[in-house]
Amino acid sequence: MNPASARPYRGVFPVAPTIFDDRGELDLDGQRRCIDFMIDAGSNGICILANFSEQFVLTDAERERVMDAVLKHVAGRVPVIVTTTHFSSSICAARSRQAQDAGAAMVMIMPPYHGATFRVGEKAIFEFYRTVSDAIEIPIMVQDAPVAGTPLSVDFLARMARDIAHLGYFKIEVPMAAAKLRDLITSGMPDLRSTVELGPSFDFHLFRSENRRVKLDLRMPVAAARSCRRLQRGTRPKINCSLLRPVS
Amino acid sequence: MNPASARPYRGVFPVAPTIFDDRGELDLDGQRRCIDFMIDAGSNGICILANFSEQFVLTDAERERVMDAVLKHVAGRVPVIVTTTHFSSSICAARSRQAQDAGAAMVMIMPPYHGATFRVGEKAIFEFYRTVSDAIEIPIMVQDAPVAGTPLSVDFLARMARDIAHLGYFKIEVPMAAAKLRDLITSGMPDLRSTVELGPSFDFHLFRSENRRVKLDLRMPVAAARSCRRLQRGTRPKINCSLLRPVS
Repeated sequence: MNPASARPYRGVFPVAPTIFDDRGELDLDGQRRCIDFMIDAGSNGICILANFSEQFVLTDAERERVMDAVLKHVAGRVPVIVTTTHFSSSICAARSRQAQDAGAAMVMIMPPYHGATFRVGEKAIFEFYRTVSDAIEIPIMVQDAPVAGTPLSVDFLARMARDIAHLGYFKIEVPMAAAKLRDLITSGMPDLRSTVELGPSFDFHLFRSENRRVKLDLRMPVAAARSCRRLQRGTRPKINCSLLRPVS
Repeated sequence: MNPASARPYRGVFPVAPTIFDDRGELDLDGQRRCIDFMIDAGSNGICILANFSEQFVLTDAERERVMDAVLKHVAGRVPVIVTTTHFSSSICAARSRQAQDAGAAMVMIMPPYHGATFRVGEKAIFEFYRTVSDAIEIPIMVQDAPVAGTPLSVDFLARMARDIAHLGYFKIEVPMAAAKLRDLITSGMPDLRSTVELGPSFDFHLFRSENRRVKLDLRMPVAAARSCRRLQRGTRPKINCSLLRPVS
């Protein structure tokens, strides 16, 4: 395990694309090459089966094949986050447990949603995450994303982090992400200590935490590889902290 | 086969709920009782695995178990429409082929969508439906629903019905459905002859067609059972045509 795999996780965790062949079938050899590229570029971890990975064009069986192939191929070189979002709490819990048993370091989960119209309220969202948390022992990252169409308030996120055992990470990708993170750190989660900084040549918002509640940067692979290489060339900013999404 | 099963399909086709037990597991015995209730009430056909059926809380394997159980239990008593929507055209085509091979009379399909934000344009939607059509020999019903978050113009629907072999039915459930149907019939699809009528005691919009391009009413089971019983009691309006969604 390299230092980045120690908790709290730190650094750049790109989202891996799912690799298909010309007929649209899974290309697991290509998948493994992609993962190697991302690790060689210096990724501190990898996230699979996210929306950028087009998880929504896969069957359940294909999801499992991608997950098993990646986890087996990474073999502990970096921590792997597996996205296990599903509308059903029991299916999401089973997927998450399966990911943990296969070697995932963390699961990333959006609140339940379907299409443009089906949404659930805070009480049900809370129960959803608690059900998943009760089924696993690895951390949950809440994915706060526009695709879910579910506004998650700072107070609600902080309450879930406080009251749900394994819920300890956030991927904030809604507009005004930096402001939301600041609010989350300063008002909602007093156990986080914030030092928002800028990197030397790219506008990341960074912050430092001394406990497990840390945010990670989950970015597209090419941008992430560029970031990783810059870090390797020594232009690394004072990163004893996590990277967040770049502000464009 | 009863007369309702002859094409073009006519009458009330309720959507069946998926039946779960107290633990949230599939209750296939309950599912069969539910289907019998709906047939006993006079349903002219049944639609399964729709949004009202909570298809989005099922695994792929559970979908197949529900489909196989219902089709085997109905055993041709009424035509069964199976919803096979998926973002992936190849997965939707495979699901649709599987439904046909298991005895489905029709498949119902929304255009590709995921969550609040992932949508595709008309060209890709057209190719999506054509790919599915090329894989099957039974009719496709386009589900024009707010949940898909994809506006489908009258001209586009008419063009698809004209140019895609098995695309011949529509479930219009967007606001102003009656107006959209009138436009679809009168301007977009000259091979449809429209007689929009009102039932005697419920406000259905009806219309008549002399070819295969007919709309069906896919309604909630209780409301549909009430409608069916009214039809059986002789208060049936002049239904040599299809029922559409009630106008509230």
